[in-house]
Amino acid sequence: MPGPSLPTVGILGGGQLGRMLALAAIRMGIQVRFLIPESAGPVEGIGFTDVGDWNDPYVLAAFAEKCDVITVESEWAPLEHVEALPPPIPPLRPSPRSLSLIRDKGVQKKLLADANLPVPDFACCASIEEAIGAAERFSFPVVLKRFQGSYDGYGNATVRDRRSIELAWEKLADERGLLVESWVPFVRELSVLIARRPGGEQVTYPVAYTEQRDHRCHAVEVPAQISASTEEQARRIGLKAVEAVDGIGVTAVELFEREDGTILVNELAPRPHNTGHYSIEGCHTSQFENHLRGILDWPLGDPSLRAPHAVMVNVLGQESLPGQGCNIQDALDVPGVAVHLYGKKEAHPGRKMGHVTATGTAPGPIRKRAERAASSIRF
Amino acid sequence: MPGPSLPTVGILGGGQLGRMLALAAIRMGIQVRFLIPESAGPVEGIGFTDVGDWNDPYVLAAFAEKCDVITVESEWAPLEHVEALPPPIPPLRPSPRSLSLIRDKGVQKKLLADANLPVPDFACCASIEEAIGAAERFSFPVVLKRFQGSYDGYGNATVRDRRSIELAWEKLADERGLLVESWVPFVRELSVLIARRPGGEQVTYPVAYTEQRDHRCHAVEVPAQISASTEEQARRIGLKAVEAVDGIGVTAVELFEREDGTILVNELAPRPHNTGHYSIEGCHTSQFENHLRGILDWPLGDPSLRAPHAVMVNVLGQESLPGQGCNIQDALDVPGVAVHLYGKKEAHPGRKMGHVTATGTAPGPIRKRAERAASSIRF
Repeated sequence: MPGPSLPTVGILGGGQLGRMLALAAIRMGIQVRFLIPESAGPVEGIGFTDVGDWNDPYVLAAFAEKCDVITVESEWAPLEHVEALPPPIPPLRPSPRSLSLIRDKGVQKKLLADANLPVPDFACCASIEEAIGAAERFSFPVVLKRFQGSYDGYGNATVRDRRSIELAWEKLADERGLLVESWVPFVRELSVLIARRPGGEQVTYPVAYTEQRDHRCHAVEVPAQISASTEEQARRIGLKAVEAVDGIGVTAVELFEREDGTILVNELAPRPHNTGHYSIEGCHTSQFENHLRGILDWPLGDPSLRAPHAVMVNVLGQESLPGQGCNIQDALDVPGVAVHLYGKKEAHPGRKMGHVTATGTAPGPIRKRAERAASSIRF
Repeated sequence: MPGPSLPTVGILGGGQLGRMLALAAIRMGIQVRFLIPESAGPVEGIGFTDVGDWNDPYVLAAFAEKCDVITVESEWAPLEHVEALPPPIPPLRPSPRSLSLIRDKGVQKKLLADANLPVPDFACCASIEEAIGAAERFSFPVVLKRFQGSYDGYGNATVRDRRSIELAWEKLADERGLLVESWVPFVRELSVLIARRPGGEQVTYPVAYTEQRDHRCHAVEVPAQISASTEEQARRIGLKAVEAVDGIGVTAVELFEREDGTILVNELAPRPHNTGHYSIEGCHTSQFENHLRGILDWPLGDPSLRAPHAVMVNVLGQESLPGQGCNIQDALDVPGVAVHLYGKKEAHPGRKMGHVTATGTAPGPIRKRAERAASSIRF
């Protein structure tokens, strides 16, 4: 007798998000197929892989033919080429429209502001003069950002005077110029993840506190220790932002909390997010499983915590000696932590190589355990 | 800079246990390589696979060369051929000796009895006359079992008279005869899983209650609702049994609880076990992760429950119409359950196609949820 007719999910991109999506998919009997430009460590030996240039319509069409639905794990997936494929093509979820609204930070900010969502003051500036004008209007410091491709401290700069705007402009601006944002004196960075189906059914993960170091996510604590009204505000704003872009699957909403407890939207990511990795062990249904359920238009799972607290600490590449082991045994010696390594073939300083999650009743001790385990792993 | 030097685990066999071992391994950055006689659904697209005849020494040697340690997920892996490989070969864990002690049910029973562990009365019988003699000594009913290859109601028979012994003998006996065991009037079947490192360090999972239907595991509830003294007895006997066979990685010990609360050993399995699947969501460290840690001689993880109770219900193949979907969406509609499907290409009645786990504070409601989800999936 034949087995199940379970769908094949196509994933554009092959990094750690694709890896963790695939592990969640395989558990449920869903097949995954990656399209990646070159053989990549994180998804090697997981699911099926088409290696090819995703800008090539023939490669893309051959890939699409084998999938029941396609999603992205990379910001740089070729939306315009997916849209241009001859029908019948499987749905791309989130939709090309949602993805392009989020991808361009100027468009994204404008959309959020138009939806009456609180965002930092911003201006899309085509010239240095416009940027200086905006900075003087907002008052220094301001943040200059590329419209596309800025993340984790790349492609952006915080500037405190006119001269620095000129220097940053030279380095960062493309033909459209740069996004200029008022620098927000926040007390905490928060994140809220929302999983959503095409019909609008959605579930919201607990608000997470994100600790940044050197412009990168270092640790995430859930639930964030914030007031009930800030929590409620974060969830409401997050949901409204996701509805504004018509996010399908998981959309991550990064937020700033100001001293008075009010919330601003920093930016959106149309996919599972580093601030949701804790959910694999921490929640009844992980962000990866709910992303899959959302894009497949299946019932969404329970995003609530299995334990009162969860902490995730990233494992970043360091300056290490070639050929050295990564000391995973020392990390496993720490009780009650889950170690995730991404199978990347090369480490470099700051590269996300893995993460560690601890769950429990007291946030202090689990944070210590997660830190100890993460810091004992060396790449 | 180079990435990690993490080991490759070789797995002999490619069923659902291999699949779940691989998912646990990949999460930690460990590579897995299967050796299987033919391309198998459950491990297709997971890890790396050598398809070949594992009785062929050349196939086996080429496989072994690519592995840092080898383990088994199938009872039928070719131990004698692994032992005969020319050195250097990676360690087989558990050892060929442990595996062969467990594989033969007569040898296993004798070993357990010699270690003063409580087992049902038994006799290794070479002829019908010996079997009838043993049955009259123990008093009817008795269970006749093949020495090798009996499981889940296959290869064994419960008989109530001499005539039935003759009939069963004809059907089951090989040249060595059959194992005859006294039938135990048990009140519950229990199971205890132990993960152990080569040096003897070990951790013990909570005692599980196993509900059988038609000689197959239907559901597992953890912790079993038994007295503290029965729990203590089960753990102590389980550990002693695993030490007697020098089990490495996870060894499952199936137990009978009699009306007076005393425990008998039913049988051992030298690998992760159906009665431990709940541990993926239910425990801080799953049986699959601890099997890997044990065979790699790495620190063992915490086997304790994340939530007060966990329930697992198997999804078995039924008589279903070809081409039918498997209704996973109905199962996912049940809140707070984790659905695992094994990717098997063909279903037949009674075949293990997947399982569902629910965790929570009250055993009754989670059992109901797990049953509802499992029964809504149809193969």
